[in-house]
Amino acid sequence: MNILILGGDGYLGWPTAMRLSSLGHDVLAVDNYLRRRICRETSSEPLYEVPDLAERAELWQSISGRRVKVSIGDLSDWAYVEQIFTAFRPDAVVHYAEQPSAPYSMMDREAAALTLQNNLGSTFNLIHAVRQFAPECHIVKLGTMGEYGTPNIDIEEGWLDVEHKGRKQRFLYPRQAGSLYHTTKVMDTDLLWFYVRAWGIRVTDLMQGPVYGVETSESAGDLRLYPFLNYDEIFGTVINRFIVQAVAGHPLTVFGKGGQTRGFLNIKDTMNCICLAIETPPEPGELRIFNQFTETFSVRQLAAIVERVGQSLGLNVRTESVANPRVEAEEHYYSPAHTGLVELGLKPHPLTDDVVAGMIRTVQRFQDRIDPSKFLRGVQWR
Amino acid sequence: MNILILGGDGYLGWPTAMRLSSLGHDVLAVDNYLRRRICRETSSEPLYEVPDLAERAELWQSISGRRVKVSIGDLSDWAYVEQIFTAFRPDAVVHYAEQPSAPYSMMDREAAALTLQNNLGSTFNLIHAVRQFAPECHIVKLGTMGEYGTPNIDIEEGWLDVEHKGRKQRFLYPRQAGSLYHTTKVMDTDLLWFYVRAWGIRVTDLMQGPVYGVETSESAGDLRLYPFLNYDEIFGTVINRFIVQAVAGHPLTVFGKGGQTRGFLNIKDTMNCICLAIETPPEPGELRIFNQFTETFSVRQLAAIVERVGQSLGLNVRTESVANPRVEAEEHYYSPAHTGLVELGLKPHPLTDDVVAGMIRTVQRFQDRIDPSKFLRGVQWR
Repeated sequence: MNILILGGDGYLGWPTAMRLSSLGHDVLAVDNYLRRRICRETSSEPLYEVPDLAERAELWQSISGRRVKVSIGDLSDWAYVEQIFTAFRPDAVVHYAEQPSAPYSMMDREAAALTLQNNLGSTFNLIHAVRQFAPECHIVKLGTMGEYGTPNIDIEEGWLDVEHKGRKQRFLYPRQAGSLYHTTKVMDTDLLWFYVRAWGIRVTDLMQGPVYGVETSESAGDLRLYPFLNYDEIFGTVINRFIVQAVAGHPLTVFGKGGQTRGFLNIKDTMNCICLAIETPPEPGELRIFNQFTETFSVRQLAAIVERVGQSLGLNVRTESVANPRVEAEEHYYSPAHTGLVELGLKPHPLTDDVVAGMIRTVQRFQDRIDPSKFLRGVQWR
Repeated sequence: MNILILGGDGYLGWPTAMRLSSLGHDVLAVDNYLRRRICRETSSEPLYEVPDLAERAELWQSISGRRVKVSIGDLSDWAYVEQIFTAFRPDAVVHYAEQPSAPYSMMDREAAALTLQNNLGSTFNLIHAVRQFAPECHIVKLGTMGEYGTPNIDIEEGWLDVEHKGRKQRFLYPRQAGSLYHTTKVMDTDLLWFYVRAWGIRVTDLMQGPVYGVETSESAGDLRLYPFLNYDEIFGTVINRFIVQAVAGHPLTVFGKGGQTRGFLNIKDTMNCICLAIETPPEPGELRIFNQFTETFSVRQLAAIVERVGQSLGLNVRTESVANPRVEAEEHYYSPAHTGLVELGLKPHPLTDDVVAGMIRTVQRFQDRIDPSKFLRGVQWR
């Protein structure tokens, strides 16, 4: 298949490019380096330097013999999108091309405006490009579990059957997100759902939880192929950040009570989920939604796991509660369904002590590059 | 109160400016003339010429002795928004500054992109301006009943209490709109709801149905103060269009079976709803939602009313079904609640035969300006 990866330079984009390429697909990875630019501007550089996309593609080719095509450009620019779609008619598009940081989206008006314009602009142009140049193309869109928020009822997989005053209706599961970033993802889903109904395009929306880890089958053993590992408050996801804090001898920083519960997954499972979605496209006119995570943990539980494993490796790890800068429930009901991808064949990689220990050992190789001033940045939601 | 009207040149914006001014408020009407530009570009000019905003404000002052301040500028430009908010600290903002045509939003990619960027951009800048310059300000946002679509259960007033697997949650009523324009209004609501929760701003979201009529208490008798009357497929709402078709001796054009049912209201009721909302602001941190319409009719019923009244006035009126260019249910359940504004004191003006006859007589004064080629424009949803 011809597979286009939007945001191909990213934490998940690059590993996805290698995976799909290793499976024999013709892969074009597109990126505008927005995340690199924002990381630099906010002093949120990742733990180690990551070669640019063209360099990584060359490296990957020299190692695997497989070629990932690369194009650098901005998907919110229609002329560029048109050029990409006419030169490379995709059978599937994996859409990661969004500003992915919730704290960044809450920093100030400019950051919020960039998030709104970039995320909706890229999704909008993608939809119109598929309609115009590749109407059969399967859009695999990365959503987020954060779209659902923390309702007091079970979170179903994308849809909710409502019985009300004796009548029934199936709705998109109602969404109310906790950051502007997450709200742009809700709006992405609104946009896709409208055009699925109006135009009969085919879309898989993957409601993904926070991802941890950096190693996938393709990068194994070669650090130069690893994706970004951010450990700061702005771009670092919680498990990755805790691991780095543990290695640095810095307290694991839990926001408030730490009862915030989310669904998590190993980056290896993200790769498998994407492949499963691509192998089984939905019908035209279908918006297929999967909740993409493998286990739920509270932030407190995650801290306890990292503390325990870190201590077993001789690290001096402790946990500290800091004032919560976010507007969120610190204790809440959380019961999200996640059977769809397992039914397609997903074999989850759980967060075992071995996995945590492996992540700690990876981070230890870069121990002297850790900058503890990055851990807490004081971005306030209010 | 200092009241800012965004989109003050529009079909509802200008009558609102006069009404609030006549009540003694200090009113600033802002517009970028986007609607005038689009009407010209799509050959959808209204039935009669409407003086520009500055001219109308002068006229209104000479008649009423009241001054409506006017500023021409683009609310998706932050520098302009900042200037407006620092010069005129509003106690309330009425936000009409959106591209309001569903067919226009479906014409082509450029029109869709303009709709998305303008509508979300203006709402986003408004939210950030209120936060930064007028945090107590009450945002009165015009939404649309079209956000709800046509679910098979009762449409409640903004919120839905869901019982699911023995647990309960109140959600924003799930929305799934039938055009890109209506989808941008869903996204507006997403955006406002997020910032209401995060920042404690106060918002009234008025889910309005299609409005009919042009005369309000302030304009009565003076045609120069009437707002735009569009009768074309792109900007004309259904009742206004049927009236003009009746006067022109053109068949009333019903899309498909005509069972599409919506909630409608007289422009006089829109004025009263806006005033009621402004007089009773919600608390900080509250998103208050009203369904703003007074009666429901199917398109078929509306055609029958206009046909009957037109014939009683000696017009040769008939109805014709045309192929439906939209993707929508032509027969469906429709039972929307609308008690909130009545509880605040709204006294509805129903669509009586006298009201229809009055609209027909107004249109007859401009009979020789009707251009029948505007009625059907062939904008296809698919």
